[in-house]
Amino acid sequence: MSEKLGFIGLGIMGKGMALNLLKKGHDLCVWNRTSSKVDELVAAGATAGNSPADVASKSDIVFICVSDTPDVEAVVLGESGVLEGVKSGALVVDHSTISPQVTKEIAAKLNAKGVEMLDAPISGGNEGAANGTLSIMIGGDAAQVGRAMPYLEAMGKTITHVGAQGAGQSAKLVNQILVIGTMVSMGEAMLFAEASGLDLEKTLEAVSGGAAGSWTLSNRGPQVAKRDWRPGFTIDLQQKDLRLVLEAADQLGMPAMTTSLAFNLYRTLQTLGLGHEGNHAIVKALENMVDVRVGE
Amino acid sequence: MSEKLGFIGLGIMGKGMALNLLKKGHDLCVWNRTSSKVDELVAAGATAGNSPADVASKSDIVFICVSDTPDVEAVVLGESGVLEGVKSGALVVDHSTISPQVTKEIAAKLNAKGVEMLDAPISGGNEGAANGTLSIMIGGDAAQVGRAMPYLEAMGKTITHVGAQGAGQSAKLVNQILVIGTMVSMGEAMLFAEASGLDLEKTLEAVSGGAAGSWTLSNRGPQVAKRDWRPGFTIDLQQKDLRLVLEAADQLGMPAMTTSLAFNLYRTLQTLGLGHEGNHAIVKALENMVDVRVGE
Amino acid sequence: MSEKLGFIGLGIMGKGMALNLLKKGHDLCVWNRTSSKVDELVAAGATAGNSPADVASKSDIVFICVSDTPDVEAVVLGESGVLEGVKSGALVVDHSTISPQVTKEIAAKLNAKGVEMLDAPISGGNEGAANGTLSIMIGGDAAQVGRAMPYLEAMGKTITHVGAQGAGQSAKLVNQILVIGTMVSMGEAMLFAEASGLDLEKTLEAVSGGAAGSWTLSNRGPQVAKRDWRPGFTIDLQQKDLRLVLEAADQLGMPAMTTSLAFNLYRTLQTLGLGHEGNHAIVKALENMVDVRVGE
Amino acid sequence: MSEKLGFIGLGIMGKGMALNLLKKGHDLCVWNRTSSKVDELVAAGATAGNSPADVASKSDIVFICVSDTPDVEAVVLGESGVLEGVKSGALVVDHSTISPQVTKEIAAKLNAKGVEMLDAPISGGNEGAANGTLSIMIGGDAAQVGRAMPYLEAMGKTITHVGAQGAGQSAKLVNQILVIGTMVSMGEAMLFAEASGLDLEKTLEAVSGGAAGSWTLSNRGPQVAKRDWRPGFTIDLQQKDLRLVLEAADQLGMPAMTTSLAFNLYRTLQTLGLGHEGNHAIVKALENMVDVRVGE
Repeated sequence: MSEKLGFIGLGIMGKGMALNLLKKGHDLCVWNRTSSKVDELVAAGATAGNSPADVASKSDIVFICVSDTPDVEAVVLGESGVLEGVKSGALVVDHSTISPQVTKEIAAKLNAKGVEMLDAPISGGNEGAANGTLSIMIGGDAAQVGRAMPYLEAMGKTITHVGAQGAGQSAKLVNQILVIGTMVSMGEAMLFAEASGLDLEKTLEAVSGGAAGSWTLSNRGPQVAKRDWRPGFTIDLQQKDLRLVLEAADQLGMPAMTTSLAFNLYRTLQTLGLGHEGNHAIVKALENMVDVRVGE
Repeated sequence: MSEKLGFIGLGIMGKGMALNLLKKGHDLCVWNRTSSKVDELVAAGATAGNSPADVASKSDIVFICVSDTPDVEAVVLGESGVLEGVKSGALVVDHSTISPQVTKEIAAKLNAKGVEMLDAPISGGNEGAANGTLSIMIGGDAAQVGRAMPYLEAMGKTITHVGAQGAGQSAKLVNQILVIGTMVSMGEAMLFAEASGLDLEKTLEAVSGGAAGSWTLSNRGPQVAKRDWRPGFTIDLQQKDLRLVLEAADQLGMPAMTTSLAFNLYRTLQTLGLGHEGNHAIVKALENMVDVRVGE
Repeated sequence: MSEKLGFIGLGIMGKGMALNLLKKGHDLCVWNRTSSKVDELVAAGATAGNSPADVASKSDIVFICVSDTPDVEAVVLGESGVLEGVKSGALVVDHSTISPQVTKEIAAKLNAKGVEMLDAPISGGNEGAANGTLSIMIGGDAAQVGRAMPYLEAMGKTITHVGAQGAGQSAKLVNQILVIGTMVSMGEAMLFAEASGLDLEKTLEAVSGGAAGSWTLSNRGPQVAKRDWRPGFTIDLQQKDLRLVLEAADQLGMPAMTTSLAFNLYRTLQTLGLGHEGNHAIVKALENMVDVRVGE
Repeated sequence: MSEKLGFIGLGIMGKGMALNLLKKGHDLCVWNRTSSKVDELVAAGATAGNSPADVASKSDIVFICVSDTPDVEAVVLGESGVLEGVKSGALVVDHSTISPQVTKEIAAKLNAKGVEMLDAPISGGNEGAANGTLSIMIGGDAAQVGRAMPYLEAMGKTITHVGAQGAGQSAKLVNQILVIGTMVSMGEAMLFAEASGLDLEKTLEAVSGGAAGSWTLSNRGPQVAKRDWRPGFTIDLQQKDLRLVLEAADQLGMPAMTTSLAFNLYRTLQTLGLGHEGNHAIVKALENMVDVRVGE
């Protein structure tokens, strides 16, 4: 028998995820900061909660998908937040990408009320959210992972339990370190190719299939060659996640040299007002240094 | 009607490539600096030349596959080198990875004797050489690329004509910038994962299929998790290629920030005597800084 | 006629500064988190306050010298803090090195009670504090700078009004960027010298007087050559200040490449348990990478 | 009794040095690639040689001061070079800044003809050359240093024997690592100051006297604040020396992280056509990244 579900945060990602839960016939109560987004979900069969606390009071499992650490703090710990309304024995599943340390602090406060929490950040973009093909990285108790699994399977395709409380968030940051490393070296490589007078498309074709190949190169390389800066993931969001990486690396005492370099380069693009462009626009940070343009 | 072929340089890569030419029934004359390697080729049907000049004098197309810039200079321009014996109208195809600028200088000297040259560096490892599945990036005249194509197809699978003289070498360096960028960020990411207490194999599983995915992560990530440092490509060879990148970037006037960082890190591993290990051992350069070991 | 003074924070720096105010015959009420330090000041003529609020209630000008941003927040905004006791028309002078942004926030809260604030971070070490030869960088209103000047002159020698509210903190961070830049290049230079087989002391002698010269090289270079890691300023404190620089650079949208590099290197030394050593031990971060020791 | 002297290379530095030798009444034979510069020396009492070989044949001690490694190779090993004319028992003193390794190779060839060599690179700018106040860093045999000393004292003020053959060149590179480290952090610091809204001149005043102080900050900081890019030492020359540092660090197996960063930044300025500006213009490399101008 299905548990009663709640969903808080109906942005680009959250909306698709909530719709996928509804499609499986689950009972779903939703809330969003700006209420206009709620209507579409209600039209699809959801009920509307008045506040995160209200949603939590009506749910066995509460899914959260908001932007940043302070947003999760607000909807869980703030006034009329999840913590006020949640029932003992309930489960909170947080899909936001936030600080692994803050995740543990929030979990501790929920635990004190008899509530379990999983951190379950996602990747895969809005297509993944819409199609139910997200990657979901989960930290927390194995039994609770099992409890959430039927619902997670409605939203994601690669669902991995990577470790204890906070491990999901850490794995997401691992993901971001990797993305940014391939991104910045792609920028450097394409500037080198341009300056060498290479045909960019043929060069991408030549190198994408071998040891230099990556998702980034196959998907964003051709965009760079055409100077198409439409975002899969914006520089502003990337920079937010890199800030989490640098903060966590500092707390862990680990070096983060490529991430620091990428962070400095992305920051210059934000200063130039380009934070809304795709994260593959990192190449512009290098172009600006030498007044050369790839693909022109 | 098939042209007469020569092959100079029967190392790990060259041997497999030459064998693939023989398998197609081509007439092949070979030479190697240490003659022991020649015997295996002769047993497979090749004839042995006395010197690069001798091979060149008997060939319409001379393939070269040696290690570094000075090696190509030696076998082409040195005593009893290709330049001494080569026939007007012949074609030289250089599969070595060397400086794009030196490539152009050597080509100019061959051109002056009525000889054409293609730079055609390869990637794909010894398996690729053995199986005839190499990636080959070619710079030079289109008609000559067409002339060489039937023979290149015996050795490689992805064969791309990327531009004029030297463009093949430049594309290979583009390849190396990309490889090294994914490699160094993989090191940083796996150290972060270890310090975060993540299960490394589950984490690799969770992130390899999405936007963070790369050939490097899929092929070398599991090796790092098991501390298996057997090389697909050694640190020493990687460092040689990065030196070419940095030299070329300097000449082009382009920034090479990630490559410089990787170069500094790899250098420390060479200083510690680890140059023979695989290039995924870059993670050790970071581990040494904090006395932490991934996967232990 | 002299104003009544208060001093909060009697650590290594604060104690010397407070004693210098007493020597000039000023009326001084003091407070420290651990009360043992108060006795020495009382013996020298100070009166003891019960809390920051108590000190503030008895003072026209309140000097603060504590460690970090949260410490200033605690003694000003916390329970029984300065804000509770301070009189309208009073002046608060903060000698701590903290976030320029938090400085402005605290000043705004004091202003709302009719209290002025100057940010006045210091440099010059404990000798400077003891001898009254500190450098003091001041941000805030010019009239208040004039009001504080007679007392600042008892504590410092180079006293500069660099701009508006927060500018003193920003100037201190400028100072730290410069210190760290000379420090990390000194480490790199001395490792290079060692590996080149140079006589370190003669080399320092040869280069210190010219264009390569710096306070760091003259004062810390000889320490490095003798592997004397006693701190003028510890790695832990340096790292705290670099964290402020990186945070501020992020808010300003400016690149901070050398600071990021130094931050990563210092962090590794903290991870190895060396945070209590002098900031010139940065050279060890480089030594550890290649297992070479300068001066051995 | 004075030895007969030769001087090869009468550029900005060499001219002043040769004039200082003449002022002390020494017998001096000179040569320069472009002969116009010779006339001024002849007017001051020198004799003109026809070639480096000619100068060497008439001299007991031959001083050389040219630009780069290939220039020293040309005037010593080239046609009509020093090696052709030099007398057994003579001493060659090379004031150029070149590769420590090439220095050793050239010395070996001179030694084979019974000729000693000292590497004696200089710093101190054209004022130092004119006023006889250069710093001279010497590598080589102590007895030969003693032999050269009376003449070196006519040209320099801080004269230091730092070690064996090549050590002078290595010490000069140490000098350049330090210069560049203070230079790049000064750029970062002044950009931070500008973005923070600080008064640049007051900030320089506040920080120059303490732990952040350096020759660079005192001499080039005020130039940056006024956007005065006239060179003490040009970016092109600085870049040439950094190339020597990076090459030597590679051979020594040592990390060179700050130097790599500075090299990348300077390179961008060369690409933009600013190589003739002073090396303090490094700040422009950072300004270009964010479209901000210090001091405007």
